[in-house]
Amino acid sequence: MCGIAGYIGKQQAAPIILDGLSKLEYRGYDSAGIAVFDGQKIHMEKAVGRLRVLDEKINHGALLPGFCGIGHTRWATHGCPSDTNAHPHMNEEHTIAVVHNGIIENYEKLKQRLEKKGYRFVSETDTEVLAHMLTEYYRGDPVEAIEKVMHRVEGSYALGIMFLDHPHHIYAARKDSPLIVGINDTGKFIASDVPAILQYTRTVYYVENEEIVCLSNEHTRFCNIDGEPIEKQPVTIDWDIHAAEKGGYEHFMLKEIHEQPKAVRDTISPRIHENEIDLGEIGMTDEEIKNLRKISIVACGSAYHTGAAGKYVIEELTRIPVETDLASEFRYRNPIYQENSLVIIVSQSGETADSLAALRDAKAHGCKVLSIVNVVGSSIARESDAVLYTWAGPEISVATTKAYSCQLAVFYLLALKFAQIRSAITPDTFQTLLTALKQLPDQIEGLLSQKEKIQFFANHYLATEHIFFMGRGIDYAISMEGSLKLKEISYIHSEAYAAGELKHGTISLMEEGTLVVALATQDALYPKTVSNMIEVKTRGAFVMALSTKKHPDIEKYADYVLYIPETQNLFAGSLAIIPLQLFAYYVSLGRGLDVDKPRNLAKSVTVE
Amino acid sequence: MCGIAGYIGKQQAAPIILDGLSKLEYRGYDSAGIAVFDGQKIHMEKAVGRLRVLDEKINHGALLPGFCGIGHTRWATHGCPSDTNAHPHMNEEHTIAVVHNGIIENYEKLKQRLEKKGYRFVSETDTEVLAHMLTEYYRGDPVEAIEKVMHRVEGSYALGIMFLDHPHHIYAARKDSPLIVGINDTGKFIASDVPAILQYTRTVYYVENEEIVCLSNEHTRFCNIDGEPIEKQPVTIDWDIHAAEKGGYEHFMLKEIHEQPKAVRDTISPRIHENEIDLGEIGMTDEEIKNLRKISIVACGSAYHTGAAGKYVIEELTRIPVETDLASEFRYRNPIYQENSLVIIVSQSGETADSLAALRDAKAHGCKVLSIVNVVGSSIARESDAVLYTWAGPEISVATTKAYSCQLAVFYLLALKFAQIRSAITPDTFQTLLTALKQLPDQIEGLLSQKEKIQFFANHYLATEHIFFMGRGIDYAISMEGSLKLKEISYIHSEAYAAGELKHGTISLMEEGTLVVALATQDALYPKTVSNMIEVKTRGAFVMALSTKKHPDIEKYADYVLYIPETQNLFAGSLAIIPLQLFAYYVSLGRGLDVDKPRNLAKSVTVE
Repeated sequence: MCGIAGYIGKQQAAPIILDGLSKLEYRGYDSAGIAVFDGQKIHMEKAVGRLRVLDEKINHGALLPGFCGIGHTRWATHGCPSDTNAHPHMNEEHTIAVVHNGIIENYEKLKQRLEKKGYRFVSETDTEVLAHMLTEYYRGDPVEAIEKVMHRVEGSYALGIMFLDHPHHIYAARKDSPLIVGINDTGKFIASDVPAILQYTRTVYYVENEEIVCLSNEHTRFCNIDGEPIEKQPVTIDWDIHAAEKGGYEHFMLKEIHEQPKAVRDTISPRIHENEIDLGEIGMTDEEIKNLRKISIVACGSAYHTGAAGKYVIEELTRIPVETDLASEFRYRNPIYQENSLVIIVSQSGETADSLAALRDAKAHGCKVLSIVNVVGSSIARESDAVLYTWAGPEISVATTKAYSCQLAVFYLLALKFAQIRSAITPDTFQTLLTALKQLPDQIEGLLSQKEKIQFFANHYLATEHIFFMGRGIDYAISMEGSLKLKEISYIHSEAYAAGELKHGTISLMEEGTLVVALATQDALYPKTVSNMIEVKTRGAFVMALSTKKHPDIEKYADYVLYIPETQNLFAGSLAIIPLQLFAYYVSLGRGLDVDKPRNLAKSVTVE
Repeated sequence: MCGIAGYIGKQQAAPIILDGLSKLEYRGYDSAGIAVFDGQKIHMEKAVGRLRVLDEKINHGALLPGFCGIGHTRWATHGCPSDTNAHPHMNEEHTIAVVHNGIIENYEKLKQRLEKKGYRFVSETDTEVLAHMLTEYYRGDPVEAIEKVMHRVEGSYALGIMFLDHPHHIYAARKDSPLIVGINDTGKFIASDVPAILQYTRTVYYVENEEIVCLSNEHTRFCNIDGEPIEKQPVTIDWDIHAAEKGGYEHFMLKEIHEQPKAVRDTISPRIHENEIDLGEIGMTDEEIKNLRKISIVACGSAYHTGAAGKYVIEELTRIPVETDLASEFRYRNPIYQENSLVIIVSQSGETADSLAALRDAKAHGCKVLSIVNVVGSSIARESDAVLYTWAGPEISVATTKAYSCQLAVFYLLALKFAQIRSAITPDTFQTLLTALKQLPDQIEGLLSQKEKIQFFANHYLATEHIFFMGRGIDYAISMEGSLKLKEISYIHSEAYAAGELKHGTISLMEEGTLVVALATQDALYPKTVSNMIEVKTRGAFVMALSTKKHPDIEKYADYVLYIPETQNLFAGSLAIIPLQLFAYYVSLGRGLDVDKPRNLAKSVTVE
């Protein structure tokens, strides 16, 4: 997730901006840059790697003197981490500088238009189109130019902008990416998050969607996208710096759980245009997709669990046989590669050692490899034939939540697109499913509001030593993830079972009060799963069930019920996992554990 | 496992024989029969189903008067359960009656020869050849005829025989199937096991391999296969009836663990002739086998675990892609059936509901189905296109041991045969593997002698609540079974992990002293598994490792080591599982649980 910091005032801007960016380091980044007006020109410096590299390059700011500037830490999305792709981005004349968080979804179309008009691009970013568009529309009034750009871009953004023509001003704007303004006696600040400015001021304005900001020593102005002034009241921040980093959430995990509606939306919406799915990124012709005879999904941990769910969705919609395999098993078992097959590697970090090795083995055998990765420019992304990025932003908590949800969403897109190309589903079915897919972010949002109910329930199971999850089909795949989530941060021994398998052994562990979490979101499997619930209840288990309102009779068979909103069966996993993530979180919290950094675990497993 | 009971003496034979057979009911059977000499002729009655049916048919024996008779409870092997296939079997003239436990391996060749000579067969059994052969060789001396038959048959047998020419005699013989003789004041007994006669006498002779017995009111004679007399001393049985049923073992499970060398030998040796594997039973042409593009193995519980190991072995040797699936998942997920594919259903009982449903679905889609089943004539066996029976005999203990080992062995046979036909392995490799396969029963026998070492170790973990198993490749498949075995009878929450997956979450459960059972029998994966052992040890785990003597350095990385004999890597699972079965057994025993009938579990799961 990128970070923005900017300053205009009586002090040197660069050291303040560097300090602000350093407070945003927790968000993750891969490169940084800064632009400062020195009284004559806008000077810019950028550096890939840690902020320290930039800091040394400009001698802690001394080499970029001036009282007005903007800075940025970048988490790569469009284009690898590099000096060139780092922000700020400027126009050719170096009269406009832009820093940007978010994604401009229609940037390719905009870029083509600008290139036809003669604008030359130096980076691979989506952001650079903004600098050129501002140039195109600028007629002397920066706010008017910004308005015009905002009317034309699709996607999410928080922007910090400088115009050489208006050297003692900072402009800012936002849509769907957070942005704040701070003020104190010496100057004014913009930032993507509170921690960046907390040591300078606690007086903050929250910029709302489609608002534009203009800051100078003399004034602090807000207006809407039509240029109409807006009156705003500052608020006083009373959090400490530590809480501020987490956006007010107690832990990164909880913050990231709440970021899921946005993360899933960011992942799917740039790929959906006018009721069509565009997966041009995968670089496969329709012919190649039609000829596919086999898909192997290879991954570790939670990413493997998305593959387990992905198998059901892809097989059901496309009728292409799918094999989902643990990377650590796949790579060593002399796998059989068939003609016209596709290997899909799933990894949040893109650096998972076993998955990378599996990728290399597949490529060495001439197999096409598509990866689903969250970190742009990571090893797996670089070495794959094609990448479908999850736009979850950096994930700090060791236990993945938003990356997992985005991976699932990518599988849905892929399954739908392949099914459409292969004519495996009717156009009607395609549209029905696409509509359901687009509703998921809002539905996830709705589920998050149930969190108190889950916390209440979780508090009853803080002392439990064993928990079992069960489900059938997609519910089984989600059970595996729900169980892992709980296990890794609560240290409770939990285990997931295909509901039909329990009675082949594990049911002997059922005792009075054993907690069984039963997922029953799949309509066709509902009666079977209910039978299994009754079996464990008969042995004394306490059953918490997850289902939809379509099945209110579940209350007869379960001791506690949580409902997820109605969606297409194939997508129910994206909703069912939300309460399970919250359950894991609240149990870990209640047990007083280190939620974000569970013992013995690393965020990304780069060893075998 | 069939049961034999016979009597000659001063009392009515039929009631005593019926009573003896009822004491053998624990061994499992599907039909029963009895033959008694009434002073003139040998009368015979047989009935499929429970012994009670036969008992009523002959009015508790009253309808079969006489002082000399033999009876049998049959567990179907060759030919379905039916009145006709039940024992005794007689020759056409009804002058010779035979009951038989065991398997005549070369019966088909013998049957063809006899049929050419004009002998007419009425049953599908292997046993019937014995009746006809005895007829062929009989020249007035029953023992001489029996000797000749014994020289010509291959396989295992315990026999009870009557000759109308020698009406007050019972003859018996054995090889590799147990047989005893009992005497008391009123008469003499033969039986396949002690419980059959324990209420009449405790004075017993154990008949040894290749010995022949002749009993009459006057004498009790033993001779060897060359007719030379043998002197034998009776022993006095001091067990109670309950212990006797279990052959002196404390539990059926322990008895069945010890029956594994014989069960595996019985399963493989009839299918190996002069260094070739004969799987004519599967009814597939070489062409069909060569054209196979996909094998789906579908099963539940432990049978699923043999499929997980089978996948590795079949893929490695034949290069046919194999997918192993839980039946409860497979049947409901709208599976994709491909052309030239084979579905293999694995089930001990042959009645597992989910597996049977999967079978029917596959057949309805036109797919060829081969089953690996232990119970002849069971639903799965009947409905499959072909059956490869495991000759484990009835399994009484809920926790499977010998059926599991036999299923594994069948997968080895199948993989080797398919690989040979597809020229996927060289003739040398085939012979090397076949030699290793033939050694397995003796190697299992050797491992059983380590049991005190395992009991000693198990006793330290009686109070444990969590145990983790881990391994890679085949070791992972075996870990799953080891974990299930422990879990189902000890109620300890144990879980198996692909060793490379532990660090993606579960390693957070490791605490000081957590027991981790690490399987490291696969040479190529050995260093990787050792790395994972070090990882868990670093977090405080106590590691018990299973490996081969090829890797003595494992003692540096593990806290306790058990070695299995050296075999081919692909077959190591058959040896590695033995200590894990014993470990589960001794932990359950030590915790004072009902080993053979764990709570909540049924032997065969005939519901969904």
